[in-house]
Amino acid sequence: MRGAGADLAFLADTRALLERTPRVLRDLLSGMPAAWLETADTPDGWRPRDVVGHLITAEQTDWIPRVERILDGGTAVPFDLLDRFAQVGRDDAKSLDDLVAEFAALRAASLARLDELVSPADLERRGTHPSLGEVTLREHLATWAVHDLDHVSQAFAGMAGSYDAEVGPWKVYLGILLRREDPSAVAS
Amino acid sequence: MRGAGADLAFLADTRALLERTPRVLRDLLSGMPAAWLETADTPDGWRPRDVVGHLITAEQTDWIPRVERILDGGTAVPFDLLDRFAQVGRDDAKSLDDLVAEFAALRAASLARLDELVSPADLERRGTHPSLGEVTLREHLATWAVHDLDHVSQAFAGMAGSYDAEVGPWKVYLGILLRREDPSAVAS
Repeated sequence: MRGAGADLAFLADTRALLERTPRVLRDLLSGMPAAWLETADTPDGWRPRDVVGHLITAEQTDWIPRVERILDGGTAVPFDLLDRFAQVGRDDAKSLDDLVAEFAALRAASLARLDELVSPADLERRGTHPSLGEVTLREHLATWAVHDLDHVSQAFAGMAGSYDAEVGPWKVYLGILLRREDPSAVAS
Repeated sequence: MRGAGADLAFLADTRALLERTPRVLRDLLSGMPAAWLETADTPDGWRPRDVVGHLITAEQTDWIPRVERILDGGTAVPFDLLDRFAQVGRDDAKSLDDLVAEFAALRAASLARLDELVSPADLERRGTHPSLGEVTLREHLATWAVHDLDHVSQAFAGMAGSYDAEVGPWKVYLGILLRREDPSAVAS
């Protein structure tokens, strides 16, 4: 416990990030020319549409379901594992704009459910992660937000990769391009 | 030359990215709780407000001024170097929301000027970079766009870093956090 005020602020801060992600993805990706969208962040990585598909999967099967498991059963039943490749094939017939809109609708529903389910007093309640062991609801919610930032950044890296050849000699200054080939690269 | 159609598409594609960046930054940062905003991407890196300050500097002194130098003088006079620390001190009295709005206004003016100045036939015109040597206008414009993606990602990394301690054991899965400490780290 950190005090009710700090817990309330943590929930509000986390929610503020979570509610922004659909808007950021829409601004970045909806209607974007295909020239930016067909490149993965790394050779075996994901294109922006794969990233959005993964975020859809996590919204459907991970974030709120794990909140419910913590609140309903505590540490007794471990979380189900997230299928990291559920989007493969599933989303092929959908446009990127459709996927972005689908994610936005799922996120809005998740946040409404979060508001119903979680109060500041719940943040230290615990569940069991199948690999990591005991975790708190606070850590789960923080991870939800940072997972958004991680994957939106991945979409940015794929988009940058679409212009890898276009920047010519400037590539040595652009860490976002250098790191696609060598994770330890540091821009000049 | 790649043909007038391809050159026209390159200009439109590049512009599509450039015009989205102010919206992405506004959605991500405006009104955001301070808990997300006080951490740099790396120990000697930048907070989100430093990133926006740097983007303001580049808008004021780099992107359009270098376009003008290429069009006016070709390779004869090298570009002026960008001051990477111009934002230090300069922006201290401004709120992050003010900086985001200032950047948006500068970007809108830059794009209007780009439309006046550059046609597809200009893309192979050349200038001189003080360190990189001869570069084309096409490479300069591509770099402008990728530079946006690179620095917005940097803001994301700083925001993620604000929650570094909150995610608990999940950190091993979150590359955006691991890379802040070890650029070569790969998430589990």
